[in-house]
Amino acid sequence: MSAPAEPAPELDLTADVLTLTRALVDAPSVSGSEGPLADAVEGALRQLGGLDVERVGDTVLARTSLDRPTRIVLAGHLDTVPIAGNLPSWIDTVDGEDRLYGCGTSDMKAGDAVMLRLAARFGVPGAQPARDLTFVFYDNEEVEAVRNGLGRVARERRGWLYGDLAILLEPTDGVVEGGCQGTLRVVLTVPGKRAHSARSWLGVNAVHGAAGILGTLAGYAAREVEIDGLLYREGLNAVRIEGGVAGNVVPDECRVTVNFRYAPDRDEDQAEAHVREVFADALAAGVTLEVTDSSGGALPGLSEPAVAAFVAATGQPARAKLGWTDVARFAAFGIPALNYGPGDPNLAHKADEHVRLDRLQPAEDALIAYLSGSDA
Amino acid sequence: MSAPAEPAPELDLTADVLTLTRALVDAPSVSGSEGPLADAVEGALRQLGGLDVERVGDTVLARTSLDRPTRIVLAGHLDTVPIAGNLPSWIDTVDGEDRLYGCGTSDMKAGDAVMLRLAARFGVPGAQPARDLTFVFYDNEEVEAVRNGLGRVARERRGWLYGDLAILLEPTDGVVEGGCQGTLRVVLTVPGKRAHSARSWLGVNAVHGAAGILGTLAGYAAREVEIDGLLYREGLNAVRIEGGVAGNVVPDECRVTVNFRYAPDRDEDQAEAHVREVFADALAAGVTLEVTDSSGGALPGLSEPAVAAFVAATGQPARAKLGWTDVARFAAFGIPALNYGPGDPNLAHKADEHVRLDRLQPAEDALIAYLSGSDA
Repeated sequence: MSAPAEPAPELDLTADVLTLTRALVDAPSVSGSEGPLADAVEGALRQLGGLDVERVGDTVLARTSLDRPTRIVLAGHLDTVPIAGNLPSWIDTVDGEDRLYGCGTSDMKAGDAVMLRLAARFGVPGAQPARDLTFVFYDNEEVEAVRNGLGRVARERRGWLYGDLAILLEPTDGVVEGGCQGTLRVVLTVPGKRAHSARSWLGVNAVHGAAGILGTLAGYAAREVEIDGLLYREGLNAVRIEGGVAGNVVPDECRVTVNFRYAPDRDEDQAEAHVREVFADALAAGVTLEVTDSSGGALPGLSEPAVAAFVAATGQPARAKLGWTDVARFAAFGIPALNYGPGDPNLAHKADEHVRLDRLQPAEDALIAYLSGSDA
Repeated sequence: MSAPAEPAPELDLTADVLTLTRALVDAPSVSGSEGPLADAVEGALRQLGGLDVERVGDTVLARTSLDRPTRIVLAGHLDTVPIAGNLPSWIDTVDGEDRLYGCGTSDMKAGDAVMLRLAARFGVPGAQPARDLTFVFYDNEEVEAVRNGLGRVARERRGWLYGDLAILLEPTDGVVEGGCQGTLRVVLTVPGKRAHSARSWLGVNAVHGAAGILGTLAGYAAREVEIDGLLYREGLNAVRIEGGVAGNVVPDECRVTVNFRYAPDRDEDQAEAHVREVFADALAAGVTLEVTDSSGGALPGLSEPAVAAFVAATGQPARAKLGWTDVARFAAFGIPALNYGPGDPNLAHKADEHVRLDRLQPAEDALIAYLSGSDA
């Protein structure tokens, strides 16, 4: 999983956001090998002179302490998915768009570069941001949740995460994506009784027994919910089905893994209760349900003044975040959180991942305007 | 798969059928390693002096040439499933039954021992059986069909298989089991369209699309057919289902493997046509059907005089064979074939496999009576 460690790159935080994005992209940091890049980020932030800096594993934390009435937490992960022959970065013009190509451009080193530009502006002695700032550059976002650097900070340095608003610079194409869906994964196990398929009446076919579950899924009417003016669409899907012993055996078990993506007006318990209700007939007939994965959603919090002010600063209406992101880690502490970044979410994890050059400066500018503003 | 080769055992064909069964069982011959046992069988048959003997791979062929009006083919496989800690053999009394335990006792070295006893009686100079006899001791019955020794004989030495009746000494508990079911395996593939499960409405869930197929299977009313007085029960079963890409992806394919076990009044083409008709709605909706395995059944042929005479010799009414066996290889050449052996079919392939001692001599006696009889 880990790529070999590279020497720490030099990061010049006075360079423009495109130059800085390229410097970050050209320093490979596949999950588990973020160390050299984290070293470079830590070093550059410490040199600024206006930030308290702390290192937790390969996560770098930095913040101003100016006693401003509001504190904004900016978070971005440093790691990328495995490189797909798409490094070092290159610039190309395609479909009339100038683009920076390379692993991690959209997800999310362009966002990290914006954060570093803000640190260079507001994290120096004498700077006067309207809001206090916390920067979280974290590791291991693209891998199993237990390794997630932001999760580790939440467990070990929770105080660093408190603020009035958290902004994750995940790719959102320059539009605020509010909150996030919750996700629940359950395994429904249909029991049966094994028998030779030539004498199948001696057995009970568990795969046939899954007919009702699939019928329920096929007929499920997913809810659409408007929260703070944002539309969340739910979805209940079988993401895996498996059953079978051998080509001549009536299967004694069929397992259906179901993923429920739900709007953030339900909490985790309510989501599970809903799924149990949907499959009530099957459960009454002997099917078992096991929760294998559960992550609550996050409300968009657009009615919070700090959030509304930020949406206004972007000049674009917000939309619902469809998908689970680390904003939920802030939401779990009651901190409004949103996603906003210059990358394109549809390109994440793809070999042709790129970021539009004309998305970079507007993102930096919107955040500068917001952090300089007087409404705080 | 292959066990290490063992030295060829000594086989004394003048010993009683129990002693001979034990000698065969205690010579391990898991599929692919039948060589030493085939050597022993071949050597013992050649010593008898009244048989033409030929070796094809690890299959041993032997026959009388006495110009009798009818020829009976006796066939038994020498191989066993893998040993399950149940060798060497042992005798025990359980539930008031004296039993010989061990891998291959029922399936089907007890049957092979009966064949060897018949060879010792009728395959010596001066013997006067009422019918000519062909013995086929073959290899690799318990593994994929392409390795089956009887199949190889059918391809390379077809003349050896001709006769008026073929008797497979597979375990049938001492009752004639007539004919065999056919078996057809098809894979139904439901197409879909991949999407992130958080935006599932952009995709088409192939697992949900299998609901109709499973519903059809769950509601399928299997036919029961009487042929020559024997009752055949059919069955249509999903033996495997698989679908799923990842825990957060709407699956774009779901594959259901269906096994149709059918009565021998249908041929292979009719069986496939029936399955296509059963799933007509799904096929019309874009599901594809691929035949992966097809073996026709065998009619019981009880109206044939040679078959009726044998059933009479066993003193027990015949019943239908539920399951596919190598009798179909004879049926494909128009040769009536049946299953009749001293083993217990319910114990085949089990660690506690055994044969009742009181089943051995009656099987030998019934065959002696039949082969000595004057009705031929």
